[in-house]
Amino acid sequence: MSECILHEDRFFDSDPSIRNAARELYNEAKRLPIVSPHGHVDPKIFVDNKPFPHPTELFIAPDHYVYRMLYSQGIKLEELDIPQRGGKTLGVDPRKVWQLFGENYYLFNGTPSGVWLDYEFNIVFGIKEKLNGENAQKYYDTINEKLQTEEFLPRNLFKHFNIEVLSTTDAANDQLEHHKAIKESGWDGRIVPAFRPDALTNLDNPTWREDIKVLESLVGFEISKYQDFIKALELRREYFKEMGATSTDHGVLTPYTHKLSDGEVEAIFSRALRGEVYEDDPKLFTANMLMEMARMSCDDGLTMQIHSGSNRNHNSVIYDKYGLDKGCDIPQQTEYTNNLKELLNAYGNDTNFRVIVFTLDETTYSRELAPLAGHYPAMKLGPAWWFHDSIEGMTRYRQMVTETAGFYNTVGFNDDTRAFVSIPARHDVARRIDANFLGGLVARHIISLSEARIIMKDLTYNLVKKAYKL
Amino acid sequence: MSECILHEDRFFDSDPSIRNAARELYNEAKRLPIVSPHGHVDPKIFVDNKPFPHPTELFIAPDHYVYRMLYSQGIKLEELDIPQRGGKTLGVDPRKVWQLFGENYYLFNGTPSGVWLDYEFNIVFGIKEKLNGENAQKYYDTINEKLQTEEFLPRNLFKHFNIEVLSTTDAANDQLEHHKAIKESGWDGRIVPAFRPDALTNLDNPTWREDIKVLESLVGFEISKYQDFIKALELRREYFKEMGATSTDHGVLTPYTHKLSDGEVEAIFSRALRGEVYEDDPKLFTANMLMEMARMSCDDGLTMQIHSGSNRNHNSVIYDKYGLDKGCDIPQQTEYTNNLKELLNAYGNDTNFRVIVFTLDETTYSRELAPLAGHYPAMKLGPAWWFHDSIEGMTRYRQMVTETAGFYNTVGFNDDTRAFVSIPARHDVARRIDANFLGGLVARHIISLSEARIIMKDLTYNLVKKAYKL
Amino acid sequence: MSECILHEDRFFDSDPSIRNAARELYNEAKRLPIVSPHGHVDPKIFVDNKPFPHPTELFIAPDHYVYRMLYSQGIKLEELDIPQRGGKTLGVDPRKVWQLFGENYYLFNGTPSGVWLDYEFNIVFGIKEKLNGENAQKYYDTINEKLQTEEFLPRNLFKHFNIEVLSTTDAANDQLEHHKAIKESGWDGRIVPAFRPDALTNLDNPTWREDIKVLESLVGFEISKYQDFIKALELRREYFKEMGATSTDHGVLTPYTHKLSDGEVEAIFSRALRGEVYEDDPKLFTANMLMEMARMSCDDGLTMQIHSGSNRNHNSVIYDKYGLDKGCDIPQQTEYTNNLKELLNAYGNDTNFRVIVFTLDETTYSRELAPLAGHYPAMKLGPAWWFHDSIEGMTRYRQMVTETAGFYNTVGFNDDTRAFVSIPARHDVARRIDANFLGGLVARHIISLSEARIIMKDLTYNLVKKAYKL
Repeated sequence: MSECILHEDRFFDSDPSIRNAARELYNEAKRLPIVSPHGHVDPKIFVDNKPFPHPTELFIAPDHYVYRMLYSQGIKLEELDIPQRGGKTLGVDPRKVWQLFGENYYLFNGTPSGVWLDYEFNIVFGIKEKLNGENAQKYYDTINEKLQTEEFLPRNLFKHFNIEVLSTTDAANDQLEHHKAIKESGWDGRIVPAFRPDALTNLDNPTWREDIKVLESLVGFEISKYQDFIKALELRREYFKEMGATSTDHGVLTPYTHKLSDGEVEAIFSRALRGEVYEDDPKLFTANMLMEMARMSCDDGLTMQIHSGSNRNHNSVIYDKYGLDKGCDIPQQTEYTNNLKELLNAYGNDTNFRVIVFTLDETTYSRELAPLAGHYPAMKLGPAWWFHDSIEGMTRYRQMVTETAGFYNTVGFNDDTRAFVSIPARHDVARRIDANFLGGLVARHIISLSEARIIMKDLTYNLVKKAYKL
Repeated sequence: MSECILHEDRFFDSDPSIRNAARELYNEAKRLPIVSPHGHVDPKIFVDNKPFPHPTELFIAPDHYVYRMLYSQGIKLEELDIPQRGGKTLGVDPRKVWQLFGENYYLFNGTPSGVWLDYEFNIVFGIKEKLNGENAQKYYDTINEKLQTEEFLPRNLFKHFNIEVLSTTDAANDQLEHHKAIKESGWDGRIVPAFRPDALTNLDNPTWREDIKVLESLVGFEISKYQDFIKALELRREYFKEMGATSTDHGVLTPYTHKLSDGEVEAIFSRALRGEVYEDDPKLFTANMLMEMARMSCDDGLTMQIHSGSNRNHNSVIYDKYGLDKGCDIPQQTEYTNNLKELLNAYGNDTNFRVIVFTLDETTYSRELAPLAGHYPAMKLGPAWWFHDSIEGMTRYRQMVTETAGFYNTVGFNDDTRAFVSIPARHDVARRIDANFLGGLVARHIISLSEARIIMKDLTYNLVKKAYKL
Repeated sequence: MSECILHEDRFFDSDPSIRNAARELYNEAKRLPIVSPHGHVDPKIFVDNKPFPHPTELFIAPDHYVYRMLYSQGIKLEELDIPQRGGKTLGVDPRKVWQLFGENYYLFNGTPSGVWLDYEFNIVFGIKEKLNGENAQKYYDTINEKLQTEEFLPRNLFKHFNIEVLSTTDAANDQLEHHKAIKESGWDGRIVPAFRPDALTNLDNPTWREDIKVLESLVGFEISKYQDFIKALELRREYFKEMGATSTDHGVLTPYTHKLSDGEVEAIFSRALRGEVYEDDPKLFTANMLMEMARMSCDDGLTMQIHSGSNRNHNSVIYDKYGLDKGCDIPQQTEYTNNLKELLNAYGNDTNFRVIVFTLDETTYSRELAPLAGHYPAMKLGPAWWFHDSIEGMTRYRQMVTETAGFYNTVGFNDDTRAFVSIPARHDVARRIDANFLGGLVARHIISLSEARIIMKDLTYNLVKKAYKL
C-alpha cells in the first residue's frame, strides 16, 4: 500500500524562509471563496442535481488530460471506452477501465493531472492511499459509495467547495435553459453563462449557415445583410446579460484583429450566406468580428476574453472517430504585438473596456503580453492556461509577467475545467503557487510580508471579481 | 507607517549557502566604480549643474516605466502632466501628481521600477519608510529640500555615485555642444557621446531629407550621391571620436544585414533624396547601412551596438498627442541567426571589430545569441535590456547565456537610462544578481569561490571597459 | 595551485531537502551501465585498440565545443592546429597548443565543457588540481603517460566506463567495415551502427549524384527511377539491421513532412539525377523522404530520430578552410506542430512505430513537443540536445516537458559525442540533473521518494533501452 501523499506544505519551495512565508500566505487565502469566472462545467448537473454515475464516468470519460496521457502510452481510446461521435460507447465494463487507469496512474507523476487527482481522491473522497493497480477496485468501490450520498450531490458539492460564483461557456445560440431553470429553482448557487459566438464568427465552421438560421429564429428576423447579423449578436449579448453573463469568450487560432470596410465585410458576409468562402475570408472575418466584439463590449460592459493559439484536432484519426476536444489540440506559435495592435489602438485606451488575453505560447509572456498589459488600460492578462495551468507553468507565468505588468494587470485564476470535482483542487494549486511566488519575493526581501498578504488576497479574490465584474 | 525595506541581503536567494557566497561576492564588487557605457542622460545637466526641480519632474515626468504602469491602471497622462509634443504641459500642481503617485505606489511591488525607486528614496534621499498615499507629501518635502542642497547638484551626485565614465547617446547630426562645454569647463567628470545615426540610416524617418540637409551643413559639402553620404558619416564618426566617443548605436526593428550593390544602393539613395521611397527601400537601406557601419567600425575602432526588436509607438493615441518614448514601445519576435549572417561573415572574424547585440526577445538568448557570441570573435552579447533589466530578467539572461557563451563573451552591465538618479540603483541590482548567480554556481560546486571572485570583478568592471574600449 | 574541484554533491541544489533526496537518487543510478544510443565516436578506435595519441589530439582537435569558445575569444584555429579540409594540419607543437588551452581554461567556467573536462581530468585521469597556464605542461605529461598504459586502451576504457552499448552514426552508404571487424574480432563490447541517409535524402548535398552512384554499386542495380531509390534504401536499412542497428537518424533544417504524389516525386527525382534542382525541390524531397522513412520504420521496426533546427556552417570563412562540424552551426527557430502534422497523422497512431524528436529551440518544449509527445503514441521526446545538454539546459528541459508529457514520453539520455573519453562525464551530469530534478519534486512533496527512485532508474536505464529497442 502506498502512503497518503498530501503534505500540508506541498508545492512550496523547501527552503525554510520561502516555505514559512508561503505557508502563512496560503493559510489566509485558503479560506476565501472560489470565484470561477471561466470554465466548461455542464450547468445541467445543477438542474438535475442527481448523483454522479460511476467513478470512470466522473474521472476518465470527460477528462482529455487523463486519456491523452494514457493514449500516448499505447492505450487505445476504445479500451477506455471514450464516447465516440454521437455519444456512442462500446459498453466496456467501467471497472475494467478503472483498473487500467489504476495500473497506469504512475504516468501522472509530476503532472498537474496527477496533482489534481490526488487532491480529489484524498481530500474530496477521503482516500488516504495513492491509486495503483492493486487498490484500484477498492478505490472504485469507495468512490462509488460516496457518489450515492446526499453530500456528493452537485449542489451540495458546490456549497461544500465554497464556490461563490461559477461561469459556464455557452454558444451564442444557446437558449440557456439550464441557467434559466437554476434561477427558477430557487437554489441560491450562482451559475452564470458566458457568451461565446465562435460558431457564428468563424466561417470555417462547417455548420455556419445552419447556425445563422438558428440565430434568425432566436432573434425573430431575417439575417440577409451584415448589419442584421450585428444586430442579432447585440440582441444575444443582451439576452446573455439578462441571464447573468458578465463576459464573452473568443477562441481563435491567431489573435489577428482588423476592421473591414463596410463594403469588404458585406461582400464576405453575402458570399458566406451563399455558401461561398474565399481563402482569406475566414481570417479576415474573424479579425473583423473581434473588432466588433470589442466595440460591443465598450457599449454593454461585458468583459472580453480572447483565447488563441490552439491548433485544434491535430490528429485526424481521432477527430474523425471521436470528434472535438479529445486531447488532440496542439499549441502553436502566436503573435500578439502586431495582431492586437488595431484592436488596442481602437479600444485599448478605454478605461471601461476590459479585454483579457490568454496564451499557449509562453514566449509571449515577457516579450509581448506583459508589455502590452503593462501599458493599455483595457488589456489584462489571463492566468497560465491549459497545458501551463501547472506548478511550473504558473511559476513561469509569475516570473515572466510580474516585473513588467505587475500583479494588478493580471486577473486571478481561471480553472477552465469541464471536471466539476477538480475545481477545488485546481484553485488550491493556484493559491499555493501564488503563495510560494510571493513567499519567494518576501524571502529575497523584494517585498515585505505585509505587502505580500495584501497581494495574496487580491490575486485570490479581488482581482478576478473586478476583472469579470462579478 | 511602512518600515524601511532595504535589507542588506536583498535579492539574494534565501538558501544560506547561496546567500553567503552572494554576499561575499557582492561586497567586493559594490566598491568598484560605475562604468556606464550606454544611456540617455541629458549631458546639459552637467553643463548647467543646477539643482533638479521638484520630485515630480525628477521621478515621474522623464520615466516612462513609471507612468506606463500608472496609465495601465486607468490614470490619464493628463493627470500626471506628462509633457506633450512640443513640451506643452497642463500645469497640474506637481504635489497633486506626486500624491497620485504615492497612492498607487503599491502597483510597483515586484517590479524593477519599484526596486530602483526604493533604492533612490532610501539610499540616495535617506527616507526610511516606503512611499504611500499618507506620507506622499512628507516625501515630497524631504526630497525637495535635499534637491536644493549643494550635495545634490548633478556634478556632485556624479562623484558621489562613483561614476568613472558615463556615455550619452547622440544623433549623428548632434554638434555635441554640451560635451564640448563640459570638456572646456575643466570639470573632470568623464561624459562621452555615442554615435547614433538612426535618423539618417532609416528612410522611414519623416524628416530624413531635412536631416540630410543638416548633415550637409555640418560636413560642408553637398550630398548628392551615396558616396557623399558615406563620406559625411565617416566625418561625423571622426568628430564623435574626437569628442570622446568609443561606440556607435543602432536602433532597428529587425537586425537584417545585407550589402547592396553599388547600383542598388545608389538607386535607393537617389530616390530617397527626391522624396520617393519604395516599399522595400527602408528595410534594404537599413540592412545595407548596418554593413557600412560595421565596415567603418573595423576601420575606426568604434564599438558597434545593435538594439533591435522594439515595435515603437504602438499606441497611436498616445503617440499623436505625446510623441516618442512614452511607454508605448512593445517588443516583438526577432531573428538573429539568418539576419546577422551576412554581417558576421563579412566582419565577424575580425578580432579588432566589436559588435554588441541586444535583444528584447529572450527566446534568442540560448537559441541564437549565445551560440553566435560563443563563436564569432567580433560579436559580444549585451546585457538583459529594457523590460528584462530586472531581477528575474537578469537571472534568466545568465541562466540561458552562460553555458554556451561563457561569461567572457558578455560585456557587463548597461543602465540605458534617462533617469540620472537611478543609475546607482540599477548598477546595484545588476551587481547583486550577478553575485547571486555566481553564488548559485559556487553553492552547487560548479565553480569555486575564488573563481567566482575573479568573474565577479570582470562582470562588474573589466569586461565593460574592454568591450567599449573605455 | 588550484584545488581539486569535484565535490561529491556537485550540481545538486544547495537546499538540504533537495540535496539529500538528489544524493540518494543519484547514488543508486550511478552504478547503472551506460547505454549510449546516439553518438559519433569513430568505431575504428575499437578495431585498432591503439593508445590515443597526445592530450591535444584527444581533447582539443576533435571537440568543436572547446575550440569554438577559444575562437570566440580571438584565438585563431591555426594556433590550435585544428585539421583543415582534407586533414591538413600545420604541425604546431601540441605542447604549445595545450599551453594556450591551459591559459584560457578559465573561459569554460560555468559551461558544460568545463564541467565535462573537469570530470575527465579529475576522475578519468586522476589529476586533482584544476587546469591553468602554470600546470598545463605537468598536466600534459600526466595525461600522456597514462595514455600509453594498457588501462587507457579504447576497449579497456569502454569496459571501465561500464558501457553496455554504444551506437555510432553512419552514412547510408557506409559499408560498416569497422562494425564488421569488431564483431569478427570476438571482443564482446557492443557497438552498433545507426542509419543516417541525409546525404541521399538532401538534394542540396553537392555530391548527391556521386552518392547515388555509390549506392548503386552497393545494392547492385541501377537507380534510374524513384522506386529504385526507395528499394535501395530499404536494402541498406536491412543491411544496417543485420549489423546491429536499431535506429535511423535524420538531420534536417526544418522538420517539414509531406508525402508527394508519385508524379511529383518522380519528376523531382529525375531532375535531380540529371543535375537539375529547382528551388523548392530540396525542401519537398526531404519532406517526402521523412514520410518514406517513417513508413519504412513501421515496417522494419527501426526507431526513427529527427534532429532539426541547425543552420549548418554559418561562418563561411571557417567552412571554406576547415569544412563541416567546426563549431559554426547555429540554431534557428523551428516549428513542429504544423511541420510534423502529416507524418504524425499518417504514422503517429501506430504503437509499433517510434519517432524520437530533438530540438535546439527550447521554446518548443512546452508549446509543441510536450503536447505532441503527450498525445501521439509513436512520438517520444529526445533529451536536451547539443547546446542544451548542460546543467541549466537539462533542468529547463525537465521543467518544461514533464508536466505535459510526463516522464514516460521521454527516452533517457543521449551523449551525442565524438569525444569518447567524455562519455562517462556527460552521463554523470545527466544523472545528477535528473536526480536533482526528482529531488526537487520530492522536497516539494509532489512525488514521494519511493516514486522518485523508480523514475530515476527508468530515466537512467529502462526508457532508453525501450525507446531504442536495445
